[in-house]
Amino acid sequence: MSSPRQLNLNAFIYPGGHHEAAWRHPDSQPGRIYDVAYYQEIGRTAEAAKLDAVFFADGPALRTNVEHNAGSGLEPITLLTAIATATTHLGLIATASTTYYEPYNLARLFSTLDHISGGRAGWNIVTTGTDLAAANFGLAEHPSHAERYARAREFVDAVVALWDSWEDDAIVLDQAAGIYADPDKIHPIDFVGEYLKVRGPFNAPRTPQGYPVLVQAGASNDGRAFAGKYAEAIFTAHQRLEDAQAFYSDIKAKARQFGRDADHIKILPGISPFIADTEAGAKKLEREFNELTVPEYGLKQLEGIAGKSLRHLALDEPVPVELFSDAGDVTDNARSRLQVVAGIVQRERPTVRGLLHRLAGARGHRVFAGTPEQVADTIEEWFRSGAADGFNIMPPYYPGGLEVFAETVVPILQQRGLFRTEYTGTTLRDHFGLPRPESQFARRPALAQ
Amino acid sequence: MSSPRQLNLNAFIYPGGHHEAAWRHPDSQPGRIYDVAYYQEIGRTAEAAKLDAVFFADGPALRTNVEHNAGSGLEPITLLTAIATATTHLGLIATASTTYYEPYNLARLFSTLDHISGGRAGWNIVTTGTDLAAANFGLAEHPSHAERYARAREFVDAVVALWDSWEDDAIVLDQAAGIYADPDKIHPIDFVGEYLKVRGPFNAPRTPQGYPVLVQAGASNDGRAFAGKYAEAIFTAHQRLEDAQAFYSDIKAKARQFGRDADHIKILPGISPFIADTEAGAKKLEREFNELTVPEYGLKQLEGIAGKSLRHLALDEPVPVELFSDAGDVTDNARSRLQVVAGIVQRERPTVRGLLHRLAGARGHRVFAGTPEQVADTIEEWFRSGAADGFNIMPPYYPGGLEVFAETVVPILQQRGLFRTEYTGTTLRDHFGLPRPESQFARRPALAQ
Repeated sequence: MSSPRQLNLNAFIYPGGHHEAAWRHPDSQPGRIYDVAYYQEIGRTAEAAKLDAVFFADGPALRTNVEHNAGSGLEPITLLTAIATATTHLGLIATASTTYYEPYNLARLFSTLDHISGGRAGWNIVTTGTDLAAANFGLAEHPSHAERYARAREFVDAVVALWDSWEDDAIVLDQAAGIYADPDKIHPIDFVGEYLKVRGPFNAPRTPQGYPVLVQAGASNDGRAFAGKYAEAIFTAHQRLEDAQAFYSDIKAKARQFGRDADHIKILPGISPFIADTEAGAKKLEREFNELTVPEYGLKQLEGIAGKSLRHLALDEPVPVELFSDAGDVTDNARSRLQVVAGIVQRERPTVRGLLHRLAGARGHRVFAGTPEQVADTIEEWFRSGAADGFNIMPPYYPGGLEVFAETVVPILQQRGLFRTEYTGTTLRDHFGLPRPESQFARRPALAQ
Repeated sequence: MSSPRQLNLNAFIYPGGHHEAAWRHPDSQPGRIYDVAYYQEIGRTAEAAKLDAVFFADGPALRTNVEHNAGSGLEPITLLTAIATATTHLGLIATASTTYYEPYNLARLFSTLDHISGGRAGWNIVTTGTDLAAANFGLAEHPSHAERYARAREFVDAVVALWDSWEDDAIVLDQAAGIYADPDKIHPIDFVGEYLKVRGPFNAPRTPQGYPVLVQAGASNDGRAFAGKYAEAIFTAHQRLEDAQAFYSDIKAKARQFGRDADHIKILPGISPFIADTEAGAKKLEREFNELTVPEYGLKQLEGIAGKSLRHLALDEPVPVELFSDAGDVTDNARSRLQVVAGIVQRERPTVRGLLHRLAGARGHRVFAGTPEQVADTIEEWFRSGAADGFNIMPPYYPGGLEVFAETVVPILQQRGLFRTEYTGTTLRDHFGLPRPESQFARRPALAQ
């Protein structure tokens, strides 16, 4: 008898919390966002709740509008290493850019995290959405979306080959004979692409997981094709069940087209839950946060999505629908965010202030206010109706927003048999139900008769 | 009354130990070199002895002759983060390459280590000596020594500017007013060099130390000039007191030429001590290690230094002196190692096997076999005679070689008043007696009348 299908739950860590005004709310701790103990505590909370992993977003540039925006900018692989030493089972997923890193350097950072954590590392592969990064790397302009994805494909191929370049049994460690490693089991990779050339071999052995779990979050067409080929887990943003179902089917179909087992690609929509004992209490909490937003900040962010000035809009007038219908000269990345905004505007006809509040929650991810039972219900509904394999939990405020989810929602999911009560494995691949990949360089013995 | 001048002692961590055959010796633990607990234990040993710091060498390529050579290849900043969480005062110094990193990425890794550790990070700035790295980064060949140093100067200027780009009081954290940071105190750096362009600003605030301690180890002319300008600590290799004295005077003079306080550049020669209760016992221990070397491995390494084939040499014949007198077509880096070898050959006229044993100890660094008292004596002699501000301790084997140094030599140095018995500060700058640098962007108020 096989065990029932289980949810995968990942905690997306965002310094003060995912709500843009979280740092102003008394339940957040913005003075601690450069204190490693803060992140280690969050990691321990996630592990006590048996979550699959914690995750950090990242980009190599200062966020916009820093005046009203508390982000940390700490480098996530380093930070996850510190969380690794404070936990034993929790998966550790860092975002890193294929556009602004060198494959050999990045392969080393993730390999070391996987070694240090005993096989708990995951890499959220991004091509970097913000064009602010380019000038920090000597480029006149951010490479085009298509070019970034072309490089990303080469980058992942090269990095995986580096991770595979030591066969699992390359270390001999024969002290008497003086043989440390078998050089025949350590391979140059001789990767030659259009953007990247990497000879190898790598300078460390394969990791406990073979290599870290490959995660992806791009919603563009290129992003989806990339995910279908490479991703083992996907973070995605959907406001509505039907959109999530369509995305889910599309990605699983793409994975099958690449000859992959569709169960080996876990789709995790974001959800930012405001939780209280009553629905009214949860909605009141959400309002409290929304009322702390700085409209000037929200408008600037929205201008970035819209690609045009919005200074002339009055906060308490309806958003002109036509403002968000033209996705003409924006990149594919911006277009996917623009589509989310356009959908909200067309369906809900909000005021400008109302739209800013809708987006303040989790930057286009789904915000849900309700009781623990209601949060568990919506998670179960999406999980059972082909919209999700699990969720990327985005607490509006940290650390309390994760604590309340862990203490009130997780037990309900456990009682319903949808979520583990104990870890059944030790690696992130174990938690996600993913196989440990064999090295592409492993010698296959001649087939037995 | 000022306290007497104090030694600075740094433990140079090398996976199985600094002796090339350490991994074959029963007192080493080569099976643990991918286990983070091994490094955390070494860190705790160093901290219990009140050492200033631990240090990792590094290069982005697989070491040569891996068949007989146990190195880890783990990425050192990540590894030091794990050591940071297991210690409270110990300094943490990682090597990283200015040739094969991007300034923005590397600035973030070290900044995060400094934040996580509460101000204990140091960066050993290297241009990468091995030409094996080039092919891992898509380059047809390793850039020339001069070109690497030219890029290194730009790289350090850019990285320090990034670290300085948030003034110390840039974070306002006024929750009531909704002001997180003061944008007037966060500066683009607009760095434009011949090799590098970096706009900035950085995406995280200044660190507890202002920025990590800048360490350097190049012995070439370019390396020394670079050290005089930038280095706050120097790792160096000398076999003889007079050579170390000449180097010490030269570097301190160069620092003064750059208008710097010569006390703010700590010179730390390497010493690899074999320690036993009697001198005879220590020399016997050294012989035990030397007898475990694999001559085929040592010869290959020596060929790399000599830049020519040495296969024809008989192990028990004297080294032909003329073999190491011609430093014609080698790079400056190789030449400095070649000079060390040539010096040994000319002074000691060893057999080939004898030379291989001399070099097996610590790759050209000074090996010393003696009692704890004798080790303390030589440390004191060099310290008091203008050859060293302290030492880079390179235990022949780990972890035992550090433990015996910590348990037997450190107490003698403490009794002599040469070394701290308690930490008197919390940061690596505190331990080294270095000031916390002011941000280059800090507004200076108008001078008071």
